[in-house]
Amino acid sequence: MKMTVQTLTLRLATPFRIAHGTSTERHNVLVHLGDGLGEGALPPYYALSMEEVVSYLRRLDLDALLAEDAPPLVHVLDALPPGPAPARAAVDLALHDLWGKRLGHPLYRLWGLDPERAPLSARTLSIPESNAAFRKTLARHRDAPLLKLKIGTGSTKRDEEIIRIAREETGARLCVDANSAWSVREAALFIPRLTEYDLLFIEQPIPAGDPDDWHVLRRHLPAGVPPLIADESAHRTEDAIVLAGAADGVNVKLAKTGGLHEARRMITVAKALDMKVLLGCMIESSVAVTAAAHLAPLADFLDLDGAVHLANDPFSGMRFDNGRITLPDRPGLGVTARETALP
Amino acid sequence: MKMTVQTLTLRLATPFRIAHGTSTERHNVLVHLGDGLGEGALPPYYALSMEEVVSYLRRLDLDALLAEDAPPLVHVLDALPPGPAPARAAVDLALHDLWGKRLGHPLYRLWGLDPERAPLSARTLSIPESNAAFRKTLARHRDAPLLKLKIGTGSTKRDEEIIRIAREETGARLCVDANSAWSVREAALFIPRLTEYDLLFIEQPIPAGDPDDWHVLRRHLPAGVPPLIADESAHRTEDAIVLAGAADGVNVKLAKTGGLHEARRMITVAKALDMKVLLGCMIESSVAVTAAAHLAPLADFLDLDGAVHLANDPFSGMRFDNGRITLPDRPGLGVTARETALP
Repeated sequence: MKMTVQTLTLRLATPFRIAHGTSTERHNVLVHLGDGLGEGALPPYYALSMEEVVSYLRRLDLDALLAEDAPPLVHVLDALPPGPAPARAAVDLALHDLWGKRLGHPLYRLWGLDPERAPLSARTLSIPESNAAFRKTLARHRDAPLLKLKIGTGSTKRDEEIIRIAREETGARLCVDANSAWSVREAALFIPRLTEYDLLFIEQPIPAGDPDDWHVLRRHLPAGVPPLIADESAHRTEDAIVLAGAADGVNVKLAKTGGLHEARRMITVAKALDMKVLLGCMIESSVAVTAAAHLAPLADFLDLDGAVHLANDPFSGMRFDNGRITLPDRPGLGVTARETALP
Repeated sequence: MKMTVQTLTLRLATPFRIAHGTSTERHNVLVHLGDGLGEGALPPYYALSMEEVVSYLRRLDLDALLAEDAPPLVHVLDALPPGPAPARAAVDLALHDLWGKRLGHPLYRLWGLDPERAPLSARTLSIPESNAAFRKTLARHRDAPLLKLKIGTGSTKRDEEIIRIAREETGARLCVDANSAWSVREAALFIPRLTEYDLLFIEQPIPAGDPDDWHVLRRHLPAGVPPLIADESAHRTEDAIVLAGAADGVNVKLAKTGGLHEARRMITVAKALDMKVLLGCMIESSVAVTAAAHLAPLADFLDLDGAVHLANDPFSGMRFDNGRITLPDRPGLGVTARETALP
């Protein structure tokens, strides 16, 4: 069995603007491992080069990974060498896909999950260029049950304006993502003002780096503010543990955990520590979002619209219909290449 | 599909004496759910009546449990009503067995585990009646790689004598189980004296009840004492969380967790909190010990000789050869009734 590694160039349907910058395309890594397919997202703000990712993957001992007919997945994944999370995610997904195909069942079924129990997913709206453009965008998503507003514009006044406009223009549930934009002091002053907008949650208000900042922020916030979800601060299980009591939940993403194995562990531990689980994604093809979707019945909140933003998704898998996700009923990930061709 | 519930009377090959009392037979609950088989142990010291257990099982809504061809096991088990842990264990095991049979694979394979990675299991020796009898017992187990000595005799002097004799008579690794026998003060004084015996661990030195006692004990112990494992104090995941930092590990048993689903969760969380996992059992037939054995590759230490003590194990499943366990390669639990008859 052999592994092929390629760059997956994903073009965005419209430029995607968040606090970290604006993208028109993204470059993810795609791995084929026999019948198994995996993807790892490399968002530009994680400062990781494709060379590092490919070099990690080329160094893996494939014979050890695939020695047996139905490889004991947990041990194989526990033994993966440390390395860039997107690279580990790509190989973790490919191994899960292969394993599910060999056992003859979709991953969700092998995990004892019912995909019908998945919560509704958010649709993410990037930072608007103007109020007029934003009102048009909101009108286009008038039927979305849950909208995630990217804020962190550099001005909390402008951030609040975005939320206020959305609140006026739509009946959708709203959540916001500041992508690390506020200082602890700004966040402590600003978050209580957001209570009136009935937000489902506020994501990553402050910069990642020192988890103590979350504890300081929490001590300065009154009760009753919207739940705070850690994203850039919470890559793996150990991050969730140190944030318990300060963050109300964590955003679990395969490109941060390094795949499904660690994502499941992080979900189990976060929930045991009374934290909410948001299952999120990066800008990704249907390979990675479908993989995450197999975990969706375990999540409190979903944000799995990563492939919806694409002009050229080369794969088909999970369907996304107005926040409602539907999983394919095929073994493994259940993802297939679209007729129209691979990149 | 229907459920049958019966009492499983297990006769011990020799009387089993521990700090909580002496048994010559035990009464567990056995559940058949279609093709699925489950067992829950009722050790006498947990003061739970068979009537309570049977009454819980009779009240379950079977149609809800078994509505689908391959029931989404996690949701079904999450929705089980609260009730006695051995009753929940019996139905959890039967559902896992049924689910594995429907999916066509042994549980360990569905969990991505390799049974060859299981550590060696302890063989438990009950509190000896006399030194002469104990020396004979030790001679009979001269090839065991790991012996667990039941102590907590009421006298720490006698407890130490038992350990000393075992240390003199055998080259086996040793661990001890005090079954709640010592006060915090006794434990703080006695445990440091046990360091010289090179014990793999000391189980449940103090009474269950207040988890703060563990933290008090820990503060009074020097570094370098053998690892302390909580058993009677650690039934479920939440108990492991409050003992983190005080106990070095937990003994995970199906009759305490209420089955495999919560056992897997407890193992994941305990390990994430840097605690060791001892996978243990009660006096049980091959149904329950085999179920636990499917989790063995996740454990640091094993104590799965529950069925070895029996004069009349009505089932065959896991093999126990001098501490080495071997799992059957059949779907689900892989347990079958012995020819010689059901009770």
